[in-house]
Amino acid sequence: MVKKIKGFSKFSKEEKIEWLAKTFFDEKVIVKDVLKSYWNSDVKLQKLHDDFTENTISNFYLPYGIAPNFLINGKDYTIPMVIEESSVVAAASLVAKFWTTRGGFTATVIGTRKVGQVHFMFRGPFKDLEAYFTKVRHRLLKATEQITKNMRNRGGGIVSIDLVDKTRDLADYYQLHVAFETKDSMGANFINSCLEVISEVFKREDIQIVMSILSNYVPECLVRAEVSCKVEELIEGTLETDANEYAKKFKNAVTIANVEPYRAVTHNKGIMNGIDAVVLATGNDFRAIESCAHAYASREGRYKSLTHCEVKEGVFRFWIEVPLALGTVGGLTSLHPMAKLSLELLQNPSSEELMKIIAVAGLAQNFAALRALTTTGIQKGHMKMHLMNILNQLGAGAKEKEVLIKHFKNTPVIYSAVQELYEKIK
Amino acid sequence: MVKKIKGFSKFSKEEKIEWLAKTFFDEKVIVKDVLKSYWNSDVKLQKLHDDFTENTISNFYLPYGIAPNFLINGKDYTIPMVIEESSVVAAASLVAKFWTTRGGFTATVIGTRKVGQVHFMFRGPFKDLEAYFTKVRHRLLKATEQITKNMRNRGGGIVSIDLVDKTRDLADYYQLHVAFETKDSMGANFINSCLEVISEVFKREDIQIVMSILSNYVPECLVRAEVSCKVEELIEGTLETDANEYAKKFKNAVTIANVEPYRAVTHNKGIMNGIDAVVLATGNDFRAIESCAHAYASREGRYKSLTHCEVKEGVFRFWIEVPLALGTVGGLTSLHPMAKLSLELLQNPSSEELMKIIAVAGLAQNFAALRALTTTGIQKGHMKMHLMNILNQLGAGAKEKEVLIKHFKNTPVIYSAVQELYEKIK
Repeated sequence: MVKKIKGFSKFSKEEKIEWLAKTFFDEKVIVKDVLKSYWNSDVKLQKLHDDFTENTISNFYLPYGIAPNFLINGKDYTIPMVIEESSVVAAASLVAKFWTTRGGFTATVIGTRKVGQVHFMFRGPFKDLEAYFTKVRHRLLKATEQITKNMRNRGGGIVSIDLVDKTRDLADYYQLHVAFETKDSMGANFINSCLEVISEVFKREDIQIVMSILSNYVPECLVRAEVSCKVEELIEGTLETDANEYAKKFKNAVTIANVEPYRAVTHNKGIMNGIDAVVLATGNDFRAIESCAHAYASREGRYKSLTHCEVKEGVFRFWIEVPLALGTVGGLTSLHPMAKLSLELLQNPSSEELMKIIAVAGLAQNFAALRALTTTGIQKGHMKMHLMNILNQLGAGAKEKEVLIKHFKNTPVIYSAVQELYEKIK
Repeated sequence: MVKKIKGFSKFSKEEKIEWLAKTFFDEKVIVKDVLKSYWNSDVKLQKLHDDFTENTISNFYLPYGIAPNFLINGKDYTIPMVIEESSVVAAASLVAKFWTTRGGFTATVIGTRKVGQVHFMFRGPFKDLEAYFTKVRHRLLKATEQITKNMRNRGGGIVSIDLVDKTRDLADYYQLHVAFETKDSMGANFINSCLEVISEVFKREDIQIVMSILSNYVPECLVRAEVSCKVEELIEGTLETDANEYAKKFKNAVTIANVEPYRAVTHNKGIMNGIDAVVLATGNDFRAIESCAHAYASREGRYKSLTHCEVKEGVFRFWIEVPLALGTVGGLTSLHPMAKLSLELLQNPSSEELMKIIAVAGLAQNFAALRALTTTGIQKGHMKMHLMNILNQLGAGAKEKEVLIKHFKNTPVIYSAVQELYEKIK
C-alpha cells in the first residue's frame, strides 16, 4: 500500500487523522480515540496549542511537577519541572531541603553576551576586505536601527561587529562576528533579523554570503551556582560515618567525570535532567541549551564535567559553571499558559534570575546523582519507581502491588521476573 | 512570607496545588483553574500520567505533529514529531517530499553496543589487581545471570568485561569497563542492575567502589543516514540557477560547521530539533541522546558537524553519522499511550529501525536548515510563524490578522512594531 500523500498540510486536523488512521493503523477507531482523548475540551485553548507548530494532531503530555524548598541567594523558590523521567523531581526536592538548612545555593551571572555571524566567501586580498568593512561598518549598524530600536531602549542591542579572517580553516572564508545583548529575551529572532539586514547591506559582487545566523554557542552568557558546607555536615542524612573519607570519595567522583569522557557524558546528562526540566517548564528551547552546554563541556579539547568540587580546610564546595541563553519574554514564554504559570511561580524572574535558578536546578540534580551513586547506588530509588511503572503496565491491583513491592524490596527489578511473579499471584 | 514546606511529597495533588496557589500567587483562583484546565477528563488516564514522576500537578502540552512522505530504505513512513518550535515539522515534511522523488533516504546501523563502568580506587600494585580480576571474572558474570537471563534469550547480554588502568588520569583510579547488547530496550535499568551486582561481588577491603553506572556515551551504538542525487537535481524547487555553484555553496556551509564551533553548535542544534522530536514522540530520553551526540561531535578534540557533504563527479551526497541509544520496548515506550501510538505509526520498528528513522529525521532537518540559510535565509519562514504567534498573543481577530500579515510580508517582524500597528488598527 502506498503511504504517500499530496497537499497534506492543507488538510484539516480531522482529515489528517482520518488519513493517518486509514493508512497506518489496523484498528482505525482506537487510534482516533487515543489522539482525541488528549485534546483539550476547551476548543479555543486547543486551537492555541495547535497553532504553535505545523500538522499538529494532538498534545503530547509531559508531567508537570514541582520541587519546593529551594533557597537561592536568600530567596525561597518552588521550581517547576517538566520531565518524563522518574526520580528527577524527587531528587531535586530532597537536595533542595538538604541545602536549605546549610545556607542554600548562591548564584552569580558572569555574562549575558549573545553571538551571531555572517559567514561569507571572498577571493581578493584581505586588506581590500578590511578597507571595505571599515567603510561600510557604520552603514551596517545604521541599517539595523529600525530592528534594534526597542531593544536599545531596554538597554540591549548590538555590542560589537568584527571582521574575522578564517582562511586558515577554509580557503576564502571570512565572518562578520556580531555580539549582542538581548536583555530578557532569548533573542534568536532579533539576532537573525539583524544579521539578515547586515548581510544584505554588506554583500557585494565579490562577496558571497553563505549564511547569516545566530550562534547557539554563548560561552560569555554564563552563570555560576554554588553550595558549600563544613565537611562534617556533608554526611548528615546518609549512612556514611567518616566525613573526610566521604568528602574525598565525592570529590573523586567529580574528578573521574573530568578525566573520563564515558563518565562525563552521563554526569552532564544528569545535570541536564535538572536544567532541561526547568527550560521546558518556562517555554525555553532545550535543544539550544543542550548543544551549547555540551560544546562548552568540550571547549578544552576533551569532553569534561560541568561541575567542580573542592575540599579544603574542612570546607566542602561544589559548583557549576554553565552557559545558558534564556528568555523570560518572547517566544512561548507568555504564549503557552503553563510556561506563563511557571514564570509566575518563579516570581516573574528576569532572564538573569532565570539563569541562576536553572543553574541551581542542574547543580542540585548532579549533587543528588553523585550522592546516590557514591552511597547506596542509583538503582534502589530508581527501581522502586520502575517497579510501579511495570505494575501499572501489567494492570496490577492494590493487593497484588503490595505483594510484589514487598518481594522486590531486596531483589533486582527485572521486567520478566516481575511479570512471572505477577502471573503466578494474580 | 516563608515559602518553605514540610512533608510536601505526602500531600495529595489538590493539597499541593492549594499550597502553591496560596504561597506564590496573588490570583489563587486563576492559577488553580489553569492547572486543572490541563488535566485529562479521564481520571484513570490522568492518574497514569501523574504516576510517571513525582509531585505532578498537571500536564505540560507539547504539540504532537506528523511529517508524512519519508521514504527510508524503500519503505514509506510518516514520522511523529513532538516539538514546540515552529517550522521544524513543516521543514521535515518539505524535505521528505523533496528526497522521496530522488531515491529517498538510505540508512544503516553500524553498531549497537552499549557501555557501563564500575569506577573504583585501589592502592596496591597493578599486577595484584590484575590477578584478582582474572580470578573473579567468571564469578562477576555468574552473579549477573539471573538479571541477564531474559536478555540472553533475546540474543543480548554482557559482551565483554575489562579491567582498565586509569591511574595516569587520577591516582589509584581503575575501571571495570563492561560492554552490553540490549536488543530493543534502551537498557539503562538493565545495565545499572548488572553493574551494581558486579561491583558487589568485585569489592574487597582494599578496593573502594566509587560508583557503578551505565555510560550514555555510546560511540559504538552508531547509525548512518544518507541522501544523494545528481548535482543538477539539487536546485529544483529553489530560485538558484547554477547547480554546480549552489552545490559548492551548500558544501561550504557544511565545511564551515566543521571548522567553526560557533557555527557547529547551531548546525547540530538544528539536527537535534529533528532527532529529539522523534525521541520524545517515541517515549525515549532526549537528555541521553543529546549528551551523547554532542560529546561525539567533539571526539576529535574540536566540536564539529555531525553531518558531512561531498560533491564529486556530478553527484551530491549528504550524510550523518550519529550515536543513538534507543528503546522500542521498556521505559515509557509502551506506558505512555501517545508514545505507543507513535511506535505503531512507525510500523512497530525494532530499536535498529528506530535508529535509522531518527537519524533520517536529523539529516532531513539539517538539509532543510542549510537549504533555507544558503538561499532565502531562515527568517522568512520563521517570521511568518512568529507573526502568527504574536498576533494570537495580542488577541488579533481574522480581519486584523489579514491586514498585519500583508503589512509584514516584506518588513522584519519585530514584536514592538507588530504591537504598535495592531494598536493602531484594532
